[in-house]
Amino acid sequence: VLDIRDILSGNQRAGARMIRLIEENDPMAFNLLKQLYPYSGKAFIIGITGSPGVGKSTLIDALIFEFRELEMKVGVIAIDPTSPYSGGAILGDRLRMQRHATDKDVFIRSMASRGQKGGLSLATKDAVIVLDTMGHDIIIIETVGAGQGEFDIANLAHSVGIVSIPGTGDGIQAVKAGILETGDIFIVNKSDRPGADMTCQELTMMINMRSNSETEWTPEIIKTNALNGTGVKELATTFLSHFDFMKNNGLMDSKIKELNSLYFQSLLKDLTLKKILLFMKDSQDCKEILKAIESHEINPITAAEDMVNKLWVLKTQD
Amino acid sequence: VLDIRDILSGNQRAGARMIRLIEENDPMAFNLLKQLYPYSGKAFIIGITGSPGVGKSTLIDALIFEFRELEMKVGVIAIDPTSPYSGGAILGDRLRMQRHATDKDVFIRSMASRGQKGGLSLATKDAVIVLDTMGHDIIIIETVGAGQGEFDIANLAHSVGIVSIPGTGDGIQAVKAGILETGDIFIVNKSDRPGADMTCQELTMMINMRSNSETEWTPEIIKTNALNGTGVKELATTFLSHFDFMKNNGLMDSKIKELNSLYFQSLLKDLTLKKILLFMKDSQDCKEILKAIESHEINPITAAEDMVNKLWVLKTQD
Repeated sequence: VLDIRDILSGNQRAGARMIRLIEENDPMAFNLLKQLYPYSGKAFIIGITGSPGVGKSTLIDALIFEFRELEMKVGVIAIDPTSPYSGGAILGDRLRMQRHATDKDVFIRSMASRGQKGGLSLATKDAVIVLDTMGHDIIIIETVGAGQGEFDIANLAHSVGIVSIPGTGDGIQAVKAGILETGDIFIVNKSDRPGADMTCQELTMMINMRSNSETEWTPEIIKTNALNGTGVKELATTFLSHFDFMKNNGLMDSKIKELNSLYFQSLLKDLTLKKILLFMKDSQDCKEILKAIESHEINPITAAEDMVNKLWVLKTQD
Repeated sequence: VLDIRDILSGNQRAGARMIRLIEENDPMAFNLLKQLYPYSGKAFIIGITGSPGVGKSTLIDALIFEFRELEMKVGVIAIDPTSPYSGGAILGDRLRMQRHATDKDVFIRSMASRGQKGGLSLATKDAVIVLDTMGHDIIIIETVGAGQGEFDIANLAHSVGIVSIPGTGDGIQAVKAGILETGDIFIVNKSDRPGADMTCQELTMMINMRSNSETEWTPEIIKTNALNGTGVKELATTFLSHFDFMKNNGLMDSKIKELNSLYFQSLLKDLTLKKILLFMKDSQDCKEILKAIESHEINPITAAEDMVNKLWVLKTQD
């Protein structure tokens, strides 16, 4: 059996087993997380997001190198949003980060989606607690970006880096995808390609459209070339500056408060949804309602309202 | 006030008002949807997804043209995942589809996210019911792809087209993003660019890895150039073939069953989550728990379990 002391001592095998339990939704994971929680809250959590193909994994590989130069322990959680049908992760981004495999102060895991979107977000948060209590100074979460995905990362990380590449009209696309206001640091990777300066200008314009007050962090734009390491040292330093800025301006406290509240809300949702799904699976009532919806005998909205009112009752009200 | 007869007669102003009510989460929308539901279920629903910059809007513009040539009424819902902070849609994809603005048999709306991810998916489903009951033969839903977003579209559409462009390593990325098994038709747009054949080959390999039985639809790969219309007629025809294939093989019935069940499940979730959020906002209990979580007095998992058990009770069990 898994002992939380092994995780607290930073044992990588124990950490890996714990994350597998979380992925598999093992009830044991819940119990261990309860014990681990009091030791959490020390790590700085970075989110790295961007469309497929912008070079996130290579960039994170280079970032790990820079943080290691500063003698920081680094944990990485790569989110693999896999098929809703096949269930398992197909490719691990870890392949590209292989050179850190023998470094005992670097811990990299891919996490696979097991259906529920909210579930993956919650599982990632749980994994962050594990990596945090293992003693990592920096935790990097990598997600496939563009679109709804980003909202999750802003709910999980202290600082969010959005990676784009030149020549894809990312400025306008960023606004469309709503990621602009989520980003703390904008990274223009593959910056040796034509159009890099144009992309930076677009991003600058977009950032200037945001109404930043003096007490807020003004997003930075950093040009990188992850393949040869150009700009990555500056990127690492900028993330650490953002961390300091938040701590010195009281923003860290409110950020932590916000993330805690969102985590609690996710837990409430998750526990309630589990009850709903279990109910839908077993209930004869529910099967009959679905049949009646199919034959257009009843409309699904009325049916759902009736069912929710029938099933759940608020026991206490204050 | 809005009368469902105006929607059923295909009045575009009534349709637009109804969708605004849905976006604004107006209780009136719920009532009207209940009345509309019995008239729904006639349209063929196409999902078009892909990373930002692959040319989805231009492609849909060209697709509308082809479906109009076949004298079909076409509705489009463009999903604008906007910032969780600012609330409103910034850019409408409709701008690019302007040439259909005066066609009374083409109806195009952008829908903005109002926070909740599940909420957007549900709102889109509601909008589909509106466009369906307005008498559109084809409804196209456009979403920013890559990543978790796709899972939604497979839950909403009868047929899913995934758009990629040459030279972005989309094959591997598609597997990573888990979208391979969601796609019914793979569209290689901007196919005049170098590498188009390579992308098609990658996609063919990926599709061959899927274990398709004879009763299943084998995904098609179509090369297009939306800007000059190349391949778009073939694409339109292929979507219609997929529709016929599903009807002739009994797949349509099971698809409709599945989508109905998912819709009912979303409604149950949505109604329950509304209760949770309302509770979190008002409850003094909840505020105290959040404080205790912050000070690490209690762990959030135990707190959430206690709260769910305290709040909700299953009234009936069968």
